Amino acid sequence: MKAKVKTLDIRAGKPVVILNNRDAAERSIFLGDRICIKYRDLEGMAIVDTSKEVPRGNIVLFEETREELGVEEDENVEVESTIKPDSIDYIKKKVQGEELTYDETYSIVEDAVEFRLTDSELMAYTVAIDMSDFSLKEAKDLTRAMVETGEEIDVENALDKHCIGGVPGNRTTPIIVSIIAAAGYKIPKTSSRAITSPAGTADTMEVITDVKHSLEEIEDIVEKTNGCFSWGGALNLAPADDEFIRVRDSLNLDPLEQLLSSVLAKKKAVGADTVLIDIPMGDGTKVRDQKEASKLSRYFEELGKELGMDVFTLISDGSTPIGQGIGPALEARDVLEVLKSCGEKGPEDLRDKSVKMADLLLDEVSSDAEAEEILRSGDAYRKFKEIVEAQGGGTTDPENVELAGNKYTVKADKRGRIEDVKNEAVSKIAKAAGCSREKKSGLYLHKKKGDPVEEGDELITIYSEDPKRLDKAVELAEQGKVYRLKSLLSK
Amino acid sequence: MKAKVKTLDIRAGKPVVILNNRDAAERSIFLGDRICIKYRDLEGMAIVDTSKEVPRGNIVLFEETREELGVEEDENVEVESTIKPDSIDYIKKKVQGEELTYDETYSIVEDAVEFRLTDSELMAYTVAIDMSDFSLKEAKDLTRAMVETGEEIDVENALDKHCIGGVPGNRTTPIIVSIIAAAGYKIPKTSSRAITSPAGTADTMEVITDVKHSLEEIEDIVEKTNGCFSWGGALNLAPADDEFIRVRDSLNLDPLEQLLSSVLAKKKAVGADTVLIDIPMGDGTKVRDQKEASKLSRYFEELGKELGMDVFTLISDGSTPIGQGIGPALEARDVLEVLKSCGEKGPEDLRDKSVKMADLLLDEVSSDAEAEEILRSGDAYRKFKEIVEAQGGGTTDPENVELAGNKYTVKADKRGRIEDVKNEAVSKIAKAAGCSREKKSGLYLHKKKGDPVEEGDELITIYSEDPKRLDKAVELAEQGKVYRLKSLLSK
Repeated sequence: MKAKVKTLDIRAGKPVVILNNRDAAERSIFLGDRICIKYRDLEGMAIVDTSKEVPRGNIVLFEETREELGVEEDENVEVESTIKPDSIDYIKKKVQGEELTYDETYSIVEDAVEFRLTDSELMAYTVAIDMSDFSLKEAKDLTRAMVETGEEIDVENALDKHCIGGVPGNRTTPIIVSIIAAAGYKIPKTSSRAITSPAGTADTMEVITDVKHSLEEIEDIVEKTNGCFSWGGALNLAPADDEFIRVRDSLNLDPLEQLLSSVLAKKKAVGADTVLIDIPMGDGTKVRDQKEASKLSRYFEELGKELGMDVFTLISDGSTPIGQGIGPALEARDVLEVLKSCGEKGPEDLRDKSVKMADLLLDEVSSDAEAEEILRSGDAYRKFKEIVEAQGGGTTDPENVELAGNKYTVKADKRGRIEDVKNEAVSKIAKAAGCSREKKSGLYLHKKKGDPVEEGDELITIYSEDPKRLDKAVELAEQGKVYRLKSLLSK
Repeated sequence: MKAKVKTLDIRAGKPVVILNNRDAAERSIFLGDRICIKYRDLEGMAIVDTSKEVPRGNIVLFEETREELGVEEDENVEVESTIKPDSIDYIKKKVQGEELTYDETYSIVEDAVEFRLTDSELMAYTVAIDMSDFSLKEAKDLTRAMVETGEEIDVENALDKHCIGGVPGNRTTPIIVSIIAAAGYKIPKTSSRAITSPAGTADTMEVITDVKHSLEEIEDIVEKTNGCFSWGGALNLAPADDEFIRVRDSLNLDPLEQLLSSVLAKKKAVGADTVLIDIPMGDGTKVRDQKEASKLSRYFEELGKELGMDVFTLISDGSTPIGQGIGPALEARDVLEVLKSCGEKGPEDLRDKSVKMADLLLDEVSSDAEAEEILRSGDAYRKFKEIVEAQGGGTTDPENVELAGNKYTVKADKRGRIEDVKNEAVSKIAKAAGCSREKKSGLYLHKKKGDPVEEGDELITIYSEDPKRLDKAVELAEQGKVYRLKSLLSK
């Protein structure tokens, strides 16, 4: 079919074109089909969107395709339907409940990375994984394919840790990395930013130092210091994962098997072969009970084995926040306090959990080093500063961490004892205050589970860059959903 | 978030806007999320697409939204994320394998019709139906919801027929409608155009008369003549179906339960309560074996019962084409020949199948009328002309049907007997010749299954509006994949 070009001076991020819906249907071209567009001696592949509103005989090109072909408004191009990628048949096969071969899985992952699959098709694959018996072999294949369709960091025998998330303030990574690197092991840590939580490790570390590195820079930093704290988002590690996450998030789906493949693919791509997975369990986390936690744990270990990695897990108490600061800057301050004080100050639970996890990693590689000793001696803090230096320097003193100027402290209106601290309420307030977009906003929990409270005691201090948001966050905090207080008889 | 408007003078067919991906992520707005856009005192709902290429702080509006808000390039709008429609939770529930209530199903269907769901979400629902135990109750709910979210034709106690498709040339509808209407029963038939086949009934009838009618026009025509031959595509009957089909087609999925709901929703919307479903079985059709056909048959009958309709089925031989002409004009000529000759001329299989199906319908409503007699007496042809007249007149003489000017006849290069005629090869050639877009193009099968062939006999005459396409179609035909010939010993 010949079609007249209508250009849009905008990029769609993908090679998308829009055809008149009847034009398309008459040529058996459907929404999401891939077509070939020919102009002079050039050819481009694009995915079809259809609209009643595009005049017949026209084709709307976004900037990517226009540029690729060098075609201008009102010129003619030749449109040909191309054969659908084979991966579509494999997705259909998965929908029909069949097991895929490695080549079939690879083909799906490769086409996802190359934008040859539409969101709907990726969704179909995700739902099919979720609803079918997705075998361990298939999970291994999916993981390998995700690694192989991306870049890899050239570090060997590295250690790594990962938390499946869901607990506010759980910022153990900077402390663990410092201890492990100080013990002489390589730990090229890449972290994500928050998507739905108040802060991700990358957001927190960005308060302290630069976290945007290329793969080569990461290799250099790790070569020099054994560790790094980098943002994984701009790297091309297992990039198919980003495509899958994008689709999953829109329906809030979390197929266990795909989640695990994603996690281990990112680990494998950074050269980690010993990986500790933190599985926080409890109300408001992703894992509700012991049964689910054990299943996840077993699955992680088995999949790791299949991939030639030593993956082991810690099922931790995720029922209440870890640390006292919530939000990038407030969490950074907690971390720096623990490190700088050699474990004497800062939130005890954050300190203890970090030490415990570092010890588990050290034990796993049969090291004689003791995490507690590395923290107490100041070696961990020195290593932390060394890594920050290698990343271009930054703030390593908790007192230099700047917090938002607008703040308000909610106080207790009765005495009692803290029976529970609610993750979801904490996250909600932190986000209302501006997290994670505003790094200096967030909240500080003065009381932890088990603490006694007197009337008038400070409970929560909220920080926000914006007075209106502060009001909203305070209003939420005053609803009293953060702390569950057990009344004590009056004195 | 405030955002600067960048306009596109193009319609997307849906309210879609594009945000910078980081802008969106930081505000917990994901691809496919619905947002509210405020401008002065106006508000609009839109679905978010995200792109790295949109500058931060900008929002790209397609024409629908720009127009709705009356906003111009570079003006500022306020963007707010809105609560996702509840139907998303119900889709997720379905993905988790749970049974939905009527209200939940209705909510999904309504949001599909109102464009509040993205293609990915509709795909997730479709895959979930396909992969889960979709109960009869849920199929009933889905059907009812599809009817209730659309318009309905105000005809009572109507008869109807439907073919699930897959057999070229199977144009029984015009003959059946003429017989049933002549027998005094109402049959407000709406048909579709071809999407992937060489012709749909609407394409064929359009060669003869106008098929584009409003619901009111259909009611008038049926009131006058008892029947009609209308194109269902522009009517708002069970419109959710179009959304589901669009998504299904992209992955070539055909979840049985959704297919059935779609068919019966369209029937219920035209007021039919006695419906004959033709299930062609055999190679190249949608139903491969007796087991599948019986399952489909039983399911149709049960679902009909649930809906208070008398739905019954005919499992027919779909292994070879019905009739001799393939393509809109050639099929119209076959139909007119059967009708005008009172069943004396024209393809015998087309005649016999139409009479049989009409008889089944008449028996089902305990009529004494005989389809054979109605055809033979000329009543069917008179009724056909009456309906065509009510639709604005047209060609009712087979000799006046115009065929494409470029034609070529493929002849037999040996003698034998036709053992088989291959549906897929026939469709492929007809489409190569220009079907269904070119109404006058197509092919004529001179031989049917069982016919003896002498060397030099005419086998297939191909018609095309375009000489190049004719060459292509002839080339395909000469590959000899249409007829399977059993050699006979030479005389």
